[in-house]
Amino acid sequence: MDKVNLKDKLALFSDLWSPKIVGQVGDMHLKLGKIKGEFEWHSHENEDELFYVVQGRMILRFRDKDVVLEPGEFITVPKGVEHMPVAEVETHLLMIEPVGTVNTGDNEGSSRTVEPEWI
Amino acid sequence: MDKVNLKDKLALFSDLWSPKIVGQVGDMHLKLGKIKGEFEWHSHENEDELFYVVQGRMILRFRDKDVVLEPGEFITVPKGVEHMPVAEVETHLLMIEPVGTVNTGDNEGSSRTVEPEWI
Repeated sequence: MDKVNLKDKLALFSDLWSPKIVGQVGDMHLKLGKIKGEFEWHSHENEDELFYVVQGRMILRFRDKDVVLEPGEFITVPKGVEHMPVAEVETHLLMIEPVGTVNTGDNEGSSRTVEPEWI
Repeated sequence: MDKVNLKDKLALFSDLWSPKIVGQVGDMHLKLGKIKGEFEWHSHENEDELFYVVQGRMILRFRDKDVVLEPGEFITVPKGVEHMPVAEVETHLLMIEPVGTVNTGDNEGSSRTVEPEWI
């Protein structure tokens, strides 16, 4: 039962689009991610996913609108809703989602799919 | 499906020890709280509880140690573990815990028990 410092954890990796697990509460994992550029359209059939911007600026594209997230802002993407994260500058995210959530959702097995590790 | 800005939400209330719900992901509520002084010893029989410090400084007392949390740091208190939040200066927290979690846990009904509202 130790505390976690987000900046210390963010200093441990530099690879983009490869979330790292840094905590758990109930059946939810907390993951840190670094992103720049475009991801791919996907949805998560059974999992809500929360994105919180620590640093940078994320554009979260939905089929009917874009939402721009600045540091200190979060949004929950409900299960089943298609979305695509985009960042023009390197952006650091905290994500909260159920244990076992696949980063590419219904595109599991795509070239962007990664297995998250604990750091 | 709108974004939430933590600072904007924190500006909406000033009462201490009275968490407000600002988001949900899966079966978890995200709550903001303002604290100063000492709370009371309690535990949550069935719920993990995560504390993230947005501003200030929290001392989380356990029966066998204290953990000091600065801004950008979080800790998960597992279900069943007795704890007491303390803050020497006004401190702003983000908490993540299951929907329905009572702030005073096994002391439900104490003078410190409050019903959280959405803001």
